[in-house]
Amino acid sequence: MPKEKKLVESITSRDEDFAQWYTDVVREAKLCDYSSVKGCLNYLPNGYAIWENIQSILDKRFKETGVENVYLPILIPESLLQKESDHIEGFAPEVAWVTHGGLEKLEEKLCIRPTSETLFCDYWQKNIKSYRDLPKIWNQWNSVLRWEKTTRPFLRSREFLWQEGHTLHATAKEAKERTQQMLNIYYDFITKDLAIPLIKGRKTESEKFAGAEATYTIEAMMHDGKALQSGTSHYFGNEFPDAFNIKYLDKDNKLHSAYETSWGLSTRIIGAIIMVHGDNSGLILPPKIAPTQTMIIPIAQHKEGILEKANDLLTKLKKEEIRVKLDDSDKTPGYKFAEQEMLGIPTRIELGPKDIEKNQAVIVRRDTNEKIIVSLNEINKKLTEILETIQHDMYQKAEKFLNSHIQTATTIQEMIEKCNNEKGFIKAMWCGNEECEDKIKALTGGAGSRCIPFEKEKLSEKCICCGKDAKHMVIWGKSY
Amino acid sequence: MPKEKKLVESITSRDEDFAQWYTDVVREAKLCDYSSVKGCLNYLPNGYAIWENIQSILDKRFKETGVENVYLPILIPESLLQKESDHIEGFAPEVAWVTHGGLEKLEEKLCIRPTSETLFCDYWQKNIKSYRDLPKIWNQWNSVLRWEKTTRPFLRSREFLWQEGHTLHATAKEAKERTQQMLNIYYDFITKDLAIPLIKGRKTESEKFAGAEATYTIEAMMHDGKALQSGTSHYFGNEFPDAFNIKYLDKDNKLHSAYETSWGLSTRIIGAIIMVHGDNSGLILPPKIAPTQTMIIPIAQHKEGILEKANDLLTKLKKEEIRVKLDDSDKTPGYKFAEQEMLGIPTRIELGPKDIEKNQAVIVRRDTNEKIIVSLNEINKKLTEILETIQHDMYQKAEKFLNSHIQTATTIQEMIEKCNNEKGFIKAMWCGNEECEDKIKALTGGAGSRCIPFEKEKLSEKCICCGKDAKHMVIWGKSY
Repeated sequence: MPKEKKLVESITSRDEDFAQWYTDVVREAKLCDYSSVKGCLNYLPNGYAIWENIQSILDKRFKETGVENVYLPILIPESLLQKESDHIEGFAPEVAWVTHGGLEKLEEKLCIRPTSETLFCDYWQKNIKSYRDLPKIWNQWNSVLRWEKTTRPFLRSREFLWQEGHTLHATAKEAKERTQQMLNIYYDFITKDLAIPLIKGRKTESEKFAGAEATYTIEAMMHDGKALQSGTSHYFGNEFPDAFNIKYLDKDNKLHSAYETSWGLSTRIIGAIIMVHGDNSGLILPPKIAPTQTMIIPIAQHKEGILEKANDLLTKLKKEEIRVKLDDSDKTPGYKFAEQEMLGIPTRIELGPKDIEKNQAVIVRRDTNEKIIVSLNEINKKLTEILETIQHDMYQKAEKFLNSHIQTATTIQEMIEKCNNEKGFIKAMWCGNEECEDKIKALTGGAGSRCIPFEKEKLSEKCICCGKDAKHMVIWGKSY
Repeated sequence: MPKEKKLVESITSRDEDFAQWYTDVVREAKLCDYSSVKGCLNYLPNGYAIWENIQSILDKRFKETGVENVYLPILIPESLLQKESDHIEGFAPEVAWVTHGGLEKLEEKLCIRPTSETLFCDYWQKNIKSYRDLPKIWNQWNSVLRWEKTTRPFLRSREFLWQEGHTLHATAKEAKERTQQMLNIYYDFITKDLAIPLIKGRKTESEKFAGAEATYTIEAMMHDGKALQSGTSHYFGNEFPDAFNIKYLDKDNKLHSAYETSWGLSTRIIGAIIMVHGDNSGLILPPKIAPTQTMIIPIAQHKEGILEKANDLLTKLKKEEIRVKLDDSDKTPGYKFAEQEMLGIPTRIELGPKDIEKNQAVIVRRDTNEKIIVSLNEINKKLTEILETIQHDMYQKAEKFLNSHIQTATTIQEMIEKCNNEKGFIKAMWCGNEECEDKIKALTGGAGSRCIPFEKEKLSEKCICCGKDAKHMVIWGKSY
């Protein structure tokens, strides 16, 4: 019979080689892998189930704020992509082109969407007539394609899954509010459901989205101290709508410009879950997002009555809407434990002959390895409490890590030194000039501006690079 | 102020010009429209919401049978598409080719998936090692692209949305059972939730999927008597797995061939909902799938207390998990009625000053126009009952239509005559020869073989075309 493989031995230590540890966890937890199509991923059941949970929670919250889902085409004609000049400049070098349909060469080449602002604007131009047609609060869950050179599972791949929201409004005020509202939905979801602490802020001019007036971001810190941009919300003003000539007739019987936003969150966030919470035994999933919240693992399952009891427990927990599975395969309990740990299932329930004798089970926390003996009479309640505790503790732990890895610098020398010696983010003042931004990144070996946080601070009067008057406090850091 | 448009006048009579009626309903109910990308659709909120409900019901039923969702790439290298000879022959003429990525020409061209058998097989070839890895019961919700020449909303477009399930099994028996199981899920869903009666059967050799050993289908009849293939389930045997060299090590320590199935249902089914149930006032949605099940329309809403009562009712019905909306816009009640009818919302609740005085409301059925006065005290219960009755009656009506439009023919002359004079399907015996199949289609002006129904009948001894011994009773009909 084919042999069982040792699981834990197959992953690299997290502190030895973080990048390799990440790759190993993704592979051994069977979240995704590279397909035969260069740079494109196969999202496998374990990884895709996490994405489905993300979709289900976010989609519900979007809809509570009036979002309607749509689906616009995967292809964009070249002439349409070119309508907004900053946009085509930003995206042209990284799109894939369809030049032949069936057996014929196309008159105009079509790109696979890298993002869909142009398609939404094209539709609105034709269909928005009056104030009655506004606002439009639309979103689509889809895949986009960007011809990346270097790729990493979840973090950067040619095709990736995301949602892209696009909205059109009668006033700038309403559009600006929507931009913040969606950023806040991302923030709440990622901090509360994914247990990942965030810094909320605005991108600098050089880091904003191609064609946007302002880009807002939420930045998370991975275990290696690098930043991961976890969601963005863009305010376009009437840049795009004007480029597409979208006008609406208001109650005053005059034509007015419209205002636009877009906002997106992608499967990159799964990379963040892995890199914030994972350890040397594999993935650790926050209970709220875990496809399976607890795995029942019977001990000595060949003995009479064990599997029966395990199945009873399965039924009982399912009734409480706990996402539970029973591993009754012919693998050894030790292998099952390792597998449950690798998959990041937040708890396991060990149930053996001695437990059954005492009418109890052993709940083991994935995040702390703590073993908790509970009576079978009150296991539903206890397990629910433990899952809540895990969710809470995971956030606390990650927040403590984030806070203890943010330093400040008031001179460029101090910043270079801290970047060289320690991992994490640096807070420092900046004049607002792109040259200084580039210079700081170059001198620190890659610590770019992550964002200008909404929570303002004044660390000193001057830009750490040029010494001129500082305009903003910026979070700097290396990033994925 | 911009004027209201008359809604009902904007659609063609269904009996005058069915094709134009269909196009008009799709447009006026804002389900989808053609984008600037030739042959590709914009799925708009009203249409996409129907698809979301279809997804949510089917996805749940799939998962109850062990289906796991995944997502495989949108691009297929030419060499991979060519691995199974029937498959490439069937699909090569209708795929779109990506030849350039970013600024570079690709070494190997990639097609946008027309279907994903090749990608699933490619993954399995690399990852299926032992019996422990089987079965694989996978599905993805995605879009595919086929370079169609003529297109119609929902029925035929270059890009369309669907789910494609792909499964791999250790035995032929298990794979065959899965093929039937999924066909039955489609059948139950379409008959019970979409209120569309179906004929279940097997496709003839010439109509089966490119590369399959057998294709099973469910065929529905539209109001113009044409057939619409509403879902298919394919049994591949080990044709594909062998072409891709997928072998697994069994408990006997020997390598064995694996067996494959695939099955799909697409947004075409929305076209069927429209064409089976719609009437001259627009769409009629079965309550189980309707994004909104009832629309509250206040009468004389400017009068004191009316909107307050309407909002109370909204809250009350929402609590009962009825999908309800309130139209408190500044449109006239007459316009609101026409809009609710066009959108196919199964019921509306009219609530005016006189109703409130009498503590009642008027429920109007979309399918029959029947007005039912109900007390506000028991409106939840009554409305739920009415929605159930509508669902039931819609199926009965459609079933009666189907049954009264199936005729039999025992000679080719009889069949030609019936095809010329009446709409619907014809049952007739067939020898199993492709030449006869083609000839019958040509002689009848397009009545092709829809399926060999599972419910067998013997209408005569001989093939109606060649007079040789008949092998099968076939349902013939023109189709979308």
